[in-house]
Amino acid sequence: MIKYNYNDILGLEKYYRISLINKISGLKSANLIGTKDIQGIPNLAIFNSVVHIGANPPHLGFIMRPLEVDRHTYSNIKEMGYFTVNQVCEEIHKEAHHTSAKFAKGESEFDTCKLSEMYIDDFPIPFVKESKIKIGLSFQEEHLIKANNTILIIGKIENITLPDGAISEDGDIDLAALNTVAIAGLDTYYNCTRIARYEYARVNNEIRKIE
Amino acid sequence: MIKYNYNDILGLEKYYRISLINKISGLKSANLIGTKDIQGIPNLAIFNSVVHIGANPPHLGFIMRPLEVDRHTYSNIKEMGYFTVNQVCEEIHKEAHHTSAKFAKGESEFDTCKLSEMYIDDFPIPFVKESKIKIGLSFQEEHLIKANNTILIIGKIENITLPDGAISEDGDIDLAALNTVAIAGLDTYYNCTRIARYEYARVNNEIRKIE
Repeated sequence: MIKYNYNDILGLEKYYRISLINKISGLKSANLIGTKDIQGIPNLAIFNSVVHIGANPPHLGFIMRPLEVDRHTYSNIKEMGYFTVNQVCEEIHKEAHHTSAKFAKGESEFDTCKLSEMYIDDFPIPFVKESKIKIGLSFQEEHLIKANNTILIIGKIENITLPDGAISEDGDIDLAALNTVAIAGLDTYYNCTRIARYEYARVNNEIRKIE
Repeated sequence: MIKYNYNDILGLEKYYRISLINKISGLKSANLIGTKDIQGIPNLAIFNSVVHIGANPPHLGFIMRPLEVDRHTYSNIKEMGYFTVNQVCEEIHKEAHHTSAKFAKGESEFDTCKLSEMYIDDFPIPFVKESKIKIGLSFQEEHLIKANNTILIIGKIENITLPDGAISEDGDIDLAALNTVAIAGLDTYYNCTRIARYEYARVNNEIRKIE
């Protein structure tokens, strides 16, 4: 067994530590967050920290890195009050990874990374046309995490757009059928295969498959 | 295309909405959180909301549902100040799902779900022996999310334990080789296949594979 304690982790080489600690807690969601500033300049960046907050009312959250450098996603969300969350599928995962480069303000990630801006109804922020699941959100609240000055951003879901047939009659989405990818850390992409969907668990019953 | 706005979502049948909104933001990490109360009664529960907070100093976070009902994980963390995060691999994913049942205080998820308590050095909280990645954390801070009274819990990583050979020489962990699973929503489990690991992205360069 490999064992590291807190001080061992602090003593690791920087990039070794970043890779290890980013990966130990497992596979993460892969989403492109779309924003726009008050001048209309769009921004697009990949995040692996989008989490479910609640279904009623519907909310999502994600973690922003500290604001020590200019974070266009953060400043745009605060300026405009809205943002989009767009699924990363296998077909666009390289383009999505490209958005993690350090773009200067005004350089378009959409153009450079070959992803298409798409507007839906009157929502003011662009979606990613190639994403199969598109979510429009309004900014609701933020929480500064004292441990390291990261920020939890909470958004209310204002609209969702999915392809025909993506939702089953009981609200299920087969993410494998949509080629949704998962990320480990900052650099490794995985596609997924469904093992099973299970019924609601009960203490004294065997776990049963739904399908 | 299927389009729902905020009011459409509020009008959906309850379980349809729970399934849909839990799944739209993609694949999530699957971890068992281990705790213990002051009397020594252990608790184990599956979470799909563990996120990376930072590598230096090393921190993780996760989202607790509202405290309207008794949340053993929350009260135990506040009583003892420590908890464990244990990887869910394919070999134990059914047992892990079983922990989501409504256990009464004092009923052991470890026993009923056939998972083994394991203690490492002097860390006061049990790990899951069958998990290949085991993380011991100390409670650091909590943030009440006003939107729906969920709580972000932040823990500092005090120790990590992995199998021999699980970490490559540059700090990479091949999560597919460890059979790590991902979750969609509350009921569907996926195993994963590595597409590729990519170099740090640069604006004007093609995205290049590391391996």
